[in-house]
Amino acid sequence: MNKIVNLKEKFTLFDQYWTPKIVGEINNFYVKVFKAKGEFVWHSHEKEDEFFLVVQGQLKIKLPDRTEVILNENEFFNVTKGMEHCPYAEEEAHILLFEKKEVVNTGQANSEKKERKPEWL
Amino acid sequence: MNKIVNLKEKFTLFDQYWTPKIVGEINNFYVKVFKAKGEFVWHSHEKEDEFFLVVQGQLKIKLPDRTEVILNENEFFNVTKGMEHCPYAEEEAHILLFEKKEVVNTGQANSEKKERKPEWL
Repeated sequence: MNKIVNLKEKFTLFDQYWTPKIVGEINNFYVKVFKAKGEFVWHSHEKEDEFFLVVQGQLKIKLPDRTEVILNENEFFNVTKGMEHCPYAEEEAHILLFEKKEVVNTGQANSEKKERKPEWL
Repeated sequence: MNKIVNLKEKFTLFDQYWTPKIVGEINNFYVKVFKAKGEFVWHSHEKEDEFFLVVQGQLKIKLPDRTEVILNENEFFNVTKGMEHCPYAEEEAHILLFEKKEVVNTGQANSEKKERKPEWL
């Protein structure tokens, strides 16, 4: 895929929260975008790191031991493999994800929020 | 590495052009940033795709057959493996790169702009 992708434009194409959409691929990784609002679910990914970059708004990620990180626009955080985490956002936030193709959004958790086959936007 | 990285702040930490700095790692990939101004060199990467996201300014990438892409803020482009390309910028631009750890900035080209061992910022 060799086309220019405008991130802001991609976020105008869907409304649902916590449903990652694929917007690019680089070797064995996907670039995805999602909208966050409210709380996701606690989960972890056994073998894959997960890169969160805030394009708009603010994303908070709960981590073990009652800690959390607060990410504002143009900030990123890498949740490393095996690390339990629970993302949430008080207001709508727009996030870019970078992760291996085999990653499932809910990791090992059994949740109705699982997106088995994210669509390409 | 589990820390919050502020992209804008990272760009205040160096002045040189075309010298990628590592700011994160996700599995077998690095997240890098670089400042562009003027023209880089024609090159390609045999096996690795290269993801360019414009954080500030405008980046142009010359491609084969006298085509080029013009990338503005919040736009990205994936230069796929094997594709000859030559990035340039008329004014200073700030770019985020995702690429496999083994990528060398100048690819197969023999150039004084080669950065053999990018530093961590």
